[in-house]
Amino acid sequence: MAVYTQVSDIELQNFIAKFSIGDVLSCKAIAEGIENSNYLLETETGLYILTLFEKRVAPKDLPFFIGIMHHLAEKDYSCPHPVKDKSGKSLHELCGKFCCITTFLHGQWPRKQTSQHCYELGREMARFHLLGKDYPKVRENSMGMPHWQELWDKCQNFAEQYDVSLSDHVQKRLHFLQQNWPLDLPVGLIHADLFPDNVFFLKDKISGIIDFYFACTDYYAYDLAICLNCWCYDQEHNFQIEHAKSLLAGYHEIRPLTSAELKHLPLLTEGAALRFLLSRLYDWYTTPKDALVTPKDPMEYWIKLRQAPKILMREISPNGDC
Amino acid sequence: MAVYTQVSDIELQNFIAKFSIGDVLSCKAIAEGIENSNYLLETETGLYILTLFEKRVAPKDLPFFIGIMHHLAEKDYSCPHPVKDKSGKSLHELCGKFCCITTFLHGQWPRKQTSQHCYELGREMARFHLLGKDYPKVRENSMGMPHWQELWDKCQNFAEQYDVSLSDHVQKRLHFLQQNWPLDLPVGLIHADLFPDNVFFLKDKISGIIDFYFACTDYYAYDLAICLNCWCYDQEHNFQIEHAKSLLAGYHEIRPLTSAELKHLPLLTEGAALRFLLSRLYDWYTTPKDALVTPKDPMEYWIKLRQAPKILMREISPNGDC
Repeated sequence: MAVYTQVSDIELQNFIAKFSIGDVLSCKAIAEGIENSNYLLETETGLYILTLFEKRVAPKDLPFFIGIMHHLAEKDYSCPHPVKDKSGKSLHELCGKFCCITTFLHGQWPRKQTSQHCYELGREMARFHLLGKDYPKVRENSMGMPHWQELWDKCQNFAEQYDVSLSDHVQKRLHFLQQNWPLDLPVGLIHADLFPDNVFFLKDKISGIIDFYFACTDYYAYDLAICLNCWCYDQEHNFQIEHAKSLLAGYHEIRPLTSAELKHLPLLTEGAALRFLLSRLYDWYTTPKDALVTPKDPMEYWIKLRQAPKILMREISPNGDC
Repeated sequence: MAVYTQVSDIELQNFIAKFSIGDVLSCKAIAEGIENSNYLLETETGLYILTLFEKRVAPKDLPFFIGIMHHLAEKDYSCPHPVKDKSGKSLHELCGKFCCITTFLHGQWPRKQTSQHCYELGREMARFHLLGKDYPKVRENSMGMPHWQELWDKCQNFAEQYDVSLSDHVQKRLHFLQQNWPLDLPVGLIHADLFPDNVFFLKDKISGIIDFYFACTDYYAYDLAICLNCWCYDQEHNFQIEHAKSLLAGYHEIRPLTSAELKHLPLLTEGAALRFLLSRLYDWYTTPKDALVTPKDPMEYWIKLRQAPKILMREISPNGDC
């Protein structure tokens, strides 16, 4: 959880006056999300989320991210929709930070993920991929495979401190992934961060997805690979093959996977696990002790890195290269 | 800010089913308050606050605190009102913690306090004191004068580490306060923690007060003394006599202060500053480095301890004993 920026009542009132959403009734900092400051804003016209973008989000990428939400809003897709001010702008500045107001999305994220959740997630992700096909903007995945070497160079020393066997393993597998990364899978807009806390449910159905601040242009199947790592394990980090099968079945119903995508899924899943292992390793050693954010232990992804790809290859893609 | 207890979606849904407030639509942990875990809960019938009581609040005191809110609710006073479940209970257990649901109070707390805010606060506090006159329960002030010696014994070593002159000063003044503490001022239900973040405003008027978890039976004027310390300073901890005059004027309009209360106000204000200095000093040295709560620097109250009482004696209570 994190709230970095304190917005005063007066600053907020003056800011909200630029919009046609009525006066502020209340505004509470939310203890969720680790990248930005989020406030649950209540005005005379309802609930909104005010997001202040903190340093992890590059300002140059903001039009891409906010553009996605506008694009989805035009198609009545259920996600936070940016609220424009009286002059039509949806990207603003407040307290020296870029910010935006979005509509509030009902729902709760599932703390304990079931096969049914995974099935619904698969369908939702495929819908999102299809709706993004005519999104005109492109953004390179700044956390994608071509950047892992650089990330590894920055955290190799930390890895050795953390666990020598981890360092050896990563060194070898990074090389293998670079050599065998597929070159021509279907590409388009992906979310790239569909962790359970970014997917809201009402009862058993998805009410919408949030947090498009890692979205980028990359392989559709890589979005699935990320979710195989973060939705298909139990609390003790044991891979749940039934969750994985449900996720893929749900996805396949809406956007059938190509045989090349299926074949490469184990490799993509290993890559996705490596990506989160490296970023958590880096954060683990570089986050100041007094930071408001508690870094996540890299152990989870070090365990996952050695698990899902092998099981997937055996159960789902017996011809996969892993 | 603090959120200690993670409530899962399933636990929450089962819990809310005990009430007649409709299904859960969303629930966000709020990054405010340092004593308890607070969630902004949205159901089909509106907004609520779910509070889980953490270790600072003694379970035996909960009926007293929740009783106050029921008492005020019966008088249509604007504050969070406890919501009863279908069997009529308002004190519950969830995730192994005691908890309650209250109605949601609109408004924002003023980050920059003005004389006008202080005037409104004075009136509101006096109203609260009058409404509490027929509250039948009694609770000793566990942070009141008779307990300061014990608190000082626990943190004298820390005080010496922090600032030797502070230690000398406190030692002397604690003795003086004990010797000269008034014995027979008007007593009743006080809030005892009316810091700015517990007083909500809409435009320039108070919309209500929250957080009754330090409330107790003590001198009415001691509630004013606490607010003289936390509302009547600028950001650089310079005492603002105009704020103090407005606070007292507002209060006096609703519940006239006795001459004994006025006379002892400087001493009570010094005592209140000492109480917060001691508890912050204790927290400063005993809060673990990895705690979710960042302790507040005692410096603020060490500065205040030496300021307000003298100025008050000169400007407001020239016959005060200080």
